[in-house]
Amino acid sequence: MAAKYPVTIGGICMGGERPVVIAGPCSVESTEQVIAIAQAAKAAGATVLRGGIFKPRTDPRDFQGLGLEGLSALAAAREATGLPIVTEVMDIRHLEACAAVVDMLQIGSRNMYNYALLQAAGAMRKPVLLKRGFSATLREWMLAADYIARGGSEDIVFCERGIRSFETYTRNTLDITAIPIVKRETGRPVIIDPSHGTGVRWLVPIMAKAGLAAGADGVMVEAAIEPDAAVSDAFQTIDMAMLREIVRCIEP
Amino acid sequence: MAAKYPVTIGGICMGGERPVVIAGPCSVESTEQVIAIAQAAKAAGATVLRGGIFKPRTDPRDFQGLGLEGLSALAAAREATGLPIVTEVMDIRHLEACAAVVDMLQIGSRNMYNYALLQAAGAMRKPVLLKRGFSATLREWMLAADYIARGGSEDIVFCERGIRSFETYTRNTLDITAIPIVKRETGRPVIIDPSHGTGVRWLVPIMAKAGLAAGADGVMVEAAIEPDAAVSDAFQTIDMAMLREIVRCIEP
Amino acid sequence: MAAKYPVTIGGICMGGERPVVIAGPCSVESTEQVIAIAQAAKAAGATVLRGGIFKPRTDPRDFQGLGLEGLSALAAAREATGLPIVTEVMDIRHLEACAAVVDMLQIGSRNMYNYALLQAAGAMRKPVLLKRGFSATLREWMLAADYIARGGSEDIVFCERGIRSFETYTRNTLDITAIPIVKRETGRPVIIDPSHGTGVRWLVPIMAKAGLAAGADGVMVEAAIEPDAAVSDAFQTIDMAMLREIVRCIEP
Amino acid sequence: MAAKYPVTIGGICMGGERPVVIAGPCSVESTEQVIAIAQAAKAAGATVLRGGIFKPRTDPRDFQGLGLEGLSALAAAREATGLPIVTEVMDIRHLEACAAVVDMLQIGSRNMYNYALLQAAGAMRKPVLLKRGFSATLREWMLAADYIARGGSEDIVFCERGIRSFETYTRNTLDITAIPIVKRETGRPVIIDPSHGTGVRWLVPIMAKAGLAAGADGVMVEAAIEPDAAVSDAFQTIDMAMLREIVRCIEP
Repeated sequence: MAAKYPVTIGGICMGGERPVVIAGPCSVESTEQVIAIAQAAKAAGATVLRGGIFKPRTDPRDFQGLGLEGLSALAAAREATGLPIVTEVMDIRHLEACAAVVDMLQIGSRNMYNYALLQAAGAMRKPVLLKRGFSATLREWMLAADYIARGGSEDIVFCERGIRSFETYTRNTLDITAIPIVKRETGRPVIIDPSHGTGVRWLVPIMAKAGLAAGADGVMVEAAIEPDAAVSDAFQTIDMAMLREIVRCIEP
Repeated sequence: MAAKYPVTIGGICMGGERPVVIAGPCSVESTEQVIAIAQAAKAAGATVLRGGIFKPRTDPRDFQGLGLEGLSALAAAREATGLPIVTEVMDIRHLEACAAVVDMLQIGSRNMYNYALLQAAGAMRKPVLLKRGFSATLREWMLAADYIARGGSEDIVFCERGIRSFETYTRNTLDITAIPIVKRETGRPVIIDPSHGTGVRWLVPIMAKAGLAAGADGVMVEAAIEPDAAVSDAFQTIDMAMLREIVRCIEP
Repeated sequence: MAAKYPVTIGGICMGGERPVVIAGPCSVESTEQVIAIAQAAKAAGATVLRGGIFKPRTDPRDFQGLGLEGLSALAAAREATGLPIVTEVMDIRHLEACAAVVDMLQIGSRNMYNYALLQAAGAMRKPVLLKRGFSATLREWMLAADYIARGGSEDIVFCERGIRSFETYTRNTLDITAIPIVKRETGRPVIIDPSHGTGVRWLVPIMAKAGLAAGADGVMVEAAIEPDAAVSDAFQTIDMAMLREIVRCIEP
Repeated sequence: MAAKYPVTIGGICMGGERPVVIAGPCSVESTEQVIAIAQAAKAAGATVLRGGIFKPRTDPRDFQGLGLEGLSALAAAREATGLPIVTEVMDIRHLEACAAVVDMLQIGSRNMYNYALLQAAGAMRKPVLLKRGFSATLREWMLAADYIARGGSEDIVFCERGIRSFETYTRNTLDITAIPIVKRETGRPVIIDPSHGTGVRWLVPIMAKAGLAAGADGVMVEAAIEPDAAVSDAFQTIDMAMLREIVRCIEP
């Protein structure tokens, strides 16, 4: 079912009749890497490219991403494939540089309560992908979107990515029920991220299907040509065969 | 995908090629009530009848169910429709009387850690439906089944019914990811209960679909002809139109 | 502050002016072991003896306790020291045999929702120690006591032993705030179990103090002469020096 | 027990032999209000003044605080009483203005994962009070402090303020066990905020005592002369009599 307030980026409609598939590496590692993944992902049927250039890491000693340099790599991949790009921004001071290049700004789970960032992101007048805080109630998540709207953008897409629970088999507990609720309460598109939602590669395509069955307007996955070689989140990154399996679910 | 160790009750296979739909009232209120619901549920396409005769209630002053008298009501409904019946047992002292009548014994969420009951239920040599404790890890849930097996029954079906989280919009947080995991780890059938899993009527058919998409071997729902008149759990009980909507998902 | 409804076992008042210290092994392993621990615990200042003869274990293949044979070991330890004894019962069928020997029946965390057991325990007309379910709300816990009262016993003591959260450093998250709330709402004594509440030996005396500062009517700890040699819960069992440290907190 | 790395602000040592009491209004509403509260709090024995000028509110339509104008009100209160001041900063762009005035910068619970803010706060070379994210593991919390240290400040004080659980009687579940653990693991001072930790006025002094018994280096509370008239958090704001009760716990 189409969302009341669909959001279009680079010609791709989120919240329309057909769900979108957003795929790409956890971290942008080099221009070559991201172009190769973008081409493979496009061939597999993905319609939007994701790639992290700022990585929110629990430990400050871990790899923090390429930073603003990664923007040109993402732009080159868009050039090469035509896929619109979305990337996470964590620092208000990077918003303008990112907004000048990418098609959609992403607010990550750790920053869902970072109201200064939300409002400033909205002021960029770009579509914003708002991930759910991993312990956010649905009410808090929906009100966080109001900070973006107050900033100036009404092009908001929600992304359920799992909540924190006592269970340790999976990285998070994917709250699929959030999809129909937030869609109904807000009228905005809601997509699902089964990569962070499960943290377990073989579960990613299965949970993508479950999310789509619950009405998700799209799926966002970490995908790579050789997942085990990824510098971050390798254990939850899928390969192109799994990506095609997900794409098949949304074919008309 | 069929389960490795399917369980058959009254000619109905759980864990086979086609998912089952278990439906019926939260509480058995009278013979007339349960026969009427059983007939309507059968007409809607349900293949197993559920109905509570012992109700685990947080407050001892609340309605506790008809007790053993309810067994004859369930038996009459099976007689009238041919549907096999499943009911919850909470007290070891009721196991024999219940096992003599019903086709499948249910262990409810509150009693998943009641190891004495689990083992004694297994000793009845009847199929057992084991609901997940609302704060049980998957490991604890799967090991609880080992208590049943140790008691004497290998005919075990798991039922995911939601876990406790900080979210208050829904009664519980349905952990759909549990379905593929427990199915893979144990080889046993896993079904989903979106009634308790959500506690919200309009979400029941949507989440039933999501569970089936994740590979559930069946759906268990509270259903009634006039849901709003139910003495317990009215807010999450679906009507026959919603039940038919769920049945349509499993039609070949 | 004294509780409105104190409970006395073997001459020891729970909920009076002075907090009690309940100590003893996780599992009763032999008569010699439990007598030796009881004597050492008494010398250290403990006033009640605990010891498990039925052990609720997640995995049915783990050591399940000595069973009813353990009762005579507990009785011998009481004989040798004069300390009243409390032990956990998990199976209705063991209630009478246990109630004939022990001074107080314990309902463990896993069985807090086992309403049949609660009511039957109350019918023994013995004092009952009711542990909080590890995911029970305060309301559910307080209403569980009503099942015991309905069974026939008003001598009920609550025991906070930690709740399940996302944190993994400790075994559970000790909810010390529960102590003043339940004491105020019910008027009954509330004690604290920092052994299960933390699962970490060096934290046990510190958290015992914190619980007493919040108004706990007593502390229940797993203690042994050589904690590292215990067959179960060794990592959270304290030695006699730590036990004396706790006793010093309650000295007038 | 003194902390290994104590932090001194305005002559007041946090992590020394004597715990500190930080008190003040939830929100700075006017210069008159904050001076009056500061004088009363000082008379009651508090040694540091707190007061929010930027309020992180779930709903963007709620009162967001006086903003930078509030700084002069806080400075006037310090002038009038000599109490050092601490206030929360949520936006990198406000750091310099705040650091020029206050004695200690506070990072609130919602921003514990806002690594850009943490690092920039550290670069102010001011003492930083780091509240625990309401769903942060202890490891994540301790590593968040490393972002501050990496920014340039080693004067870091942790503040436990409750975590999110399923319990609804209290606003959060105060995790008192976090105090001894973080103190031991990091050597830095750890204080407790029972106002947000409970959200219930009568529980504030009791839980302050429990935290101090567990080794907290101080207590931070929302206090006012007429708590019920506060524009935010009135239900958890204590009056001066309760504040004196807390101060008495730390008297030598």
